[in-house]
Amino acid sequence: MRKVVECVPNFSEGRRKEVIDQIAEAMAIVPDVHVLDVQSDADHNRTVVTFVGEPEAVEEAAFRGIGKAAQLIDMNLHRGEHPRMGAADVVPFVPIKGVTIEDCVAIARRVGERVGRELDIPVYLYEEAATRPERRNLAEVRRGEYEGIKAEIETNPERTPDFGPQHLDKAGATAIGARPPLIAFNVYLGTDDVDVAKAIAQAVRHSSGGLRYVKALGLLVKGKAQVSMNLTDYRQTPVHRVVEIIRREAERYGVAVVESELIGLIPNEALVEAAAFYLQLGGLSSDQILENRLANLIQQR
Amino acid sequence: MRKVVECVPNFSEGRRKEVIDQIAEAMAIVPDVHVLDVQSDADHNRTVVTFVGEPEAVEEAAFRGIGKAAQLIDMNLHRGEHPRMGAADVVPFVPIKGVTIEDCVAIARRVGERVGRELDIPVYLYEEAATRPERRNLAEVRRGEYEGIKAEIETNPERTPDFGPQHLDKAGATAIGARPPLIAFNVYLGTDDVDVAKAIAQAVRHSSGGLRYVKALGLLVKGKAQVSMNLTDYRQTPVHRVVEIIRREAERYGVAVVESELIGLIPNEALVEAAAFYLQLGGLSSDQILENRLANLIQQR
Repeated sequence: MRKVVECVPNFSEGRRKEVIDQIAEAMAIVPDVHVLDVQSDADHNRTVVTFVGEPEAVEEAAFRGIGKAAQLIDMNLHRGEHPRMGAADVVPFVPIKGVTIEDCVAIARRVGERVGRELDIPVYLYEEAATRPERRNLAEVRRGEYEGIKAEIETNPERTPDFGPQHLDKAGATAIGARPPLIAFNVYLGTDDVDVAKAIAQAVRHSSGGLRYVKALGLLVKGKAQVSMNLTDYRQTPVHRVVEIIRREAERYGVAVVESELIGLIPNEALVEAAAFYLQLGGLSSDQILENRLANLIQQR
Repeated sequence: MRKVVECVPNFSEGRRKEVIDQIAEAMAIVPDVHVLDVQSDADHNRTVVTFVGEPEAVEEAAFRGIGKAAQLIDMNLHRGEHPRMGAADVVPFVPIKGVTIEDCVAIARRVGERVGRELDIPVYLYEEAATRPERRNLAEVRRGEYEGIKAEIETNPERTPDFGPQHLDKAGATAIGARPPLIAFNVYLGTDDVDVAKAIAQAVRHSSGGLRYVKALGLLVKGKAQVSMNLTDYRQTPVHRVVEIIRREAERYGVAVVESELIGLIPNEALVEAAAFYLQLGGLSSDQILENRLANLIQQR
């Protein structure tokens, strides 16, 4: 695959296995779509599917998944702990290889337009695809959830969707957007004092004055204080900078970093950037990495 | 390509372009062989070819390159600064992907046997493929060069080749072996005092008590003291350990590392290992790297 887009749709069903299977299958049968993961949570009553493929294939599969969810899920009957507003609740497109975030914004808009027109579902564009600054933030788009949006959408102009009808049916509304790859990254500290992890999380995260593309919480996990993070744009806030700030802040409490861990996947580039920083490798080009060189050669043939 | 072997044969011709081209072409025409680089040096009168491919293809191409060099180069007429003993002087096989060093040793032995039998050229197995401990070291195998070996091979049992006749013709002898990928890596120091680079090179290199898989020299390059290195087995002596020792030794002279640089290619794994060390990433599995996950998925289909 020369171009790869990832899509991570969240569906409002985490209990009925036959429903989850039908939705996942509707996407998986699109040629050149590869489903990496299907994760359901019964308490949240929600399923997160991760799939990748060529941009056109991913675009088609996302549309079909949204359609199948609309057929099988009735939001009037949905109960779960996680905030939600639609059968297909959020559908982000993520650039992985040979595509830009702008390409993913264009995909989000095309899918959104088609969902509005063919499926008669209101669509809000969010994150990088947002058409209004306040809609970049998913929490803001989803405020009031299914019930609140249903009550307001017909009268409140702030609720006017980007595509589709100005009223909510049983499939609810769908947020469709584009975002960079996310890295879920935790750092364990050499203490069982969760307050140290909380103080460091506060120092490093964007919402309380820290680095722009970091979300962080302080937790106690396996008897160790843990700074649990989502790095939402590793190109602009690289992993090494996050780790170095945590190390420095931890020092102030006489505590050291014991270990870090990755939850799920990381783009290779994020690790290469960290290596280049610590080894002080000036001018490393991606063409100097043997595997990239091989991949390019084979594609040229 | 599911399995990739690299071969880096050195030929004793660095001046006659038509000869170099014919040798490179003899290897490049083998299907599924990709020539990455052809580097000739007129003073050394020597050419280094780098090519990759599936093991069988690389094996065949190496044999053809050795045969073509034997046809076109007369060692009785060869003069150059670099030590040499044969038209095809050294032929190392390097495991890149999906193959082990043992697989490359097996390739070296098969090619060596065929070169001895079909081309009537004496072959010495070296490095990981060596059959005697003293032959692991190429310099030892090549001692006396073409002229010295020619004088000794028929009478001195230490010179008995692993394959082929016990006498030297105009194609000379060929060393065929297997070795891990090599990383050419330089570190610049914040001083113009070359003695600092020399002292650090001495501390870090194997031959004077340093790390086992490091060869190092202290040089003055672009007005800066430079520790110039070959890392001959990055799995056993990882890049980060080399850099950390250099940093620590440089401190003793009140000098810092200014930058490092890579000459040629580096396996991705070497950078991932460095990132994991500095980020303290415990239990990072190669399956957590997005690109590896994609590659595996596509192969399974």
